[in-house]
Amino acid sequence: MSIYDEALKLHEQHRGKLTVESKVPCQNAYDLSLAYTPGVAEPCRQIHKNREDVYRYTGKGNTVAVITDGTAVLGLGDIGPEAGLPVMEGKALLMKRFAGLDAWPVCLDTKDPEKIIEFCKLMAPSIGAINLEDISAPRCVTIERRLIEELDIPVFHDDQHGTAIVVLAALINCMRLKKTDPADMKVVVSGCGAAGSSIIRMLYKYGFTRIYAFDSKGCIAKKNYDRYTDLKRELLDYTNLDDQDYANIAEGLKGADIFIGVSSPGVVTKEMVETMNPGCMVFPMANPEPEVSYEDAKAAGAYIVGTGRSDYPNQVNNLLAFPGIFRGALDCRATRISENMKIAASKAIASLVSDEELTPDHVIVSPFDERVVPAVSKAVAEECIREGYVRKG
Amino acid sequence: MSIYDEALKLHEQHRGKLTVESKVPCQNAYDLSLAYTPGVAEPCRQIHKNREDVYRYTGKGNTVAVITDGTAVLGLGDIGPEAGLPVMEGKALLMKRFAGLDAWPVCLDTKDPEKIIEFCKLMAPSIGAINLEDISAPRCVTIERRLIEELDIPVFHDDQHGTAIVVLAALINCMRLKKTDPADMKVVVSGCGAAGSSIIRMLYKYGFTRIYAFDSKGCIAKKNYDRYTDLKRELLDYTNLDDQDYANIAEGLKGADIFIGVSSPGVVTKEMVETMNPGCMVFPMANPEPEVSYEDAKAAGAYIVGTGRSDYPNQVNNLLAFPGIFRGALDCRATRISENMKIAASKAIASLVSDEELTPDHVIVSPFDERVVPAVSKAVAEECIREGYVRKG
Repeated sequence: MSIYDEALKLHEQHRGKLTVESKVPCQNAYDLSLAYTPGVAEPCRQIHKNREDVYRYTGKGNTVAVITDGTAVLGLGDIGPEAGLPVMEGKALLMKRFAGLDAWPVCLDTKDPEKIIEFCKLMAPSIGAINLEDISAPRCVTIERRLIEELDIPVFHDDQHGTAIVVLAALINCMRLKKTDPADMKVVVSGCGAAGSSIIRMLYKYGFTRIYAFDSKGCIAKKNYDRYTDLKRELLDYTNLDDQDYANIAEGLKGADIFIGVSSPGVVTKEMVETMNPGCMVFPMANPEPEVSYEDAKAAGAYIVGTGRSDYPNQVNNLLAFPGIFRGALDCRATRISENMKIAASKAIASLVSDEELTPDHVIVSPFDERVVPAVSKAVAEECIREGYVRKG
Repeated sequence: MSIYDEALKLHEQHRGKLTVESKVPCQNAYDLSLAYTPGVAEPCRQIHKNREDVYRYTGKGNTVAVITDGTAVLGLGDIGPEAGLPVMEGKALLMKRFAGLDAWPVCLDTKDPEKIIEFCKLMAPSIGAINLEDISAPRCVTIERRLIEELDIPVFHDDQHGTAIVVLAALINCMRLKKTDPADMKVVVSGCGAAGSSIIRMLYKYGFTRIYAFDSKGCIAKKNYDRYTDLKRELLDYTNLDDQDYANIAEGLKGADIFIGVSSPGVVTKEMVETMNPGCMVFPMANPEPEVSYEDAKAAGAYIVGTGRSDYPNQVNNLLAFPGIFRGALDCRATRISENMKIAASKAIASLVSDEELTPDHVIVSPFDERVVPAVSKAVAEECIREGYVRKG
């Protein structure tokens, strides 16, 4: 039986993957008089007196809404909100398994960014944080940015930032291993969607200042400003700062030190990797087939190779990031998840590989490493407190 | 320590009453490849092909959203969405405890009926049913009616119909005990809000055709049509059909057989009950103090007395209704919860008191009677199928 048949059977057998259970006794009338009427009136009164007490007497502070409109589900595309539900249930399950969070899946019957924004704002009183999921670009960027500004609870779109945080963690360890400086690295990024854009912004903020970004039409360059979306125009602030005129990605890769792919299988060939600098680092993360295979990249001389796959070394898995990010943000009652909090997460993930363990095939830990969530959440909460993005009261 | 202090301690200790857990294994990479990527893509694909398969492969069909705007929480009034959360968590807990349902609490940051309606419609793809809760009248009636018409999942406002269903169950057994006919009964209802209106409609539909309704200003009567809200105008279709001109509730109660109170403590005196017909039935359900006490009503000659209190006989507790109603509606994939389904629930609840058990102090079973939810859900589902309000596919 294939993994898909097995998964289908599992889903049919359980009819969904989540169950809501009571944390308090509810066997008899006395139990109910505390958990429900009349006793429940007391926490209600206290919260009515001081709204922040909702974190003290309810589950708000441990609750994440996993929200999608079903427009960019896995690699399946716009399959609608109902068809996105199995993924949202899965994400909620991961939130509990890895970070002890209570997450509800929410699949919306609209694609209108304004309606999605309003929905999230209306829902905010009873949830601690929002995880946006599988919403197509560039709408997802607009929605997330508006919600970050307009809400006082953390909002995080994992498809944008999850991979970015983990790939930066891997690159931090590449720099450790090679004892080089980010500013000296020529970086080529293939893919300028939601994930690619976030990767570029994070790498730049960390110190990788020689980045060249490629979409399906070629290198992002000033001369094409007029035909770009706002999201691509922004990339001109972070990429191609010396205004190169690469005809294609093959040209861009010549003399490059780092390749990062969040685009399509086959975009990069073995021959192209051969033209990169000696000791180069290649992170082809297209799913399920990378831009260039681990074997080809290695055979072409790549020093470090990381993909999205669990069956090869250096898996760039966003599971390393989001559970600890949300855990940390909720632990310190963050009002937002800032760029610096994301970088703190990357550093924390990177730090889990000791100097002795650090090798080209081990620049990143496994998501099943039990140290990950505690390390990430601590780093995120500390950075949040340092920046002052915490709720008062 | 008072019940309120104990309840506060319990809420603080657990920080909320609900936990979301996984129903499927998630210990290792293999488990996750079935519950999450890549395996999860298969149920997604199947649901994309046939939208109704969302009931087959996800938790939608067992999920209830408990939605409030915090405007009429318990007897506390408009205390806001955050302060309403402990009650919604409690309601969700009851859904699991009594009917095995997975319920999420949702507290909305708006009082605008149109926004609440839109929110519920946007959320519908991933939930099986909506329980509206603690929304003030008459907005709650508008919101529920619109959603029933505009959504293809069941929507039920417990504050309106829960008490109505249970009080009808009690009256059905009163009729059994007294061997009389509903049409012969003179019924006085005190309170014409959300609950009172629903009680009146249900009793009328069941066959109680001699109903007189009183609000704080007196008997609902045609002569005051112009000063009524739409909700009160509707009551003229079901009450005061012989156009009486009772000066006050004391006048109305003279010669009445049944009193039903969903208003305020002290509205009815012992002396007023004395003017009712011999063998009268008195259901003063104001909370926490009834319109007239059990003792006073009995002393005044009432044959059967039922209140909202658990420390007196015949507790009219909506816990007898909503768990089985939602269970039944979801079991048969109902598209709505109709008036006939509610009456079927009343009959099922009534039927659990056998002829031998039926006494004036036992016209209604305890909500902890384990037969309640199976009986109610079966009756509701059967009536739903009979009426044809079931999803296709």
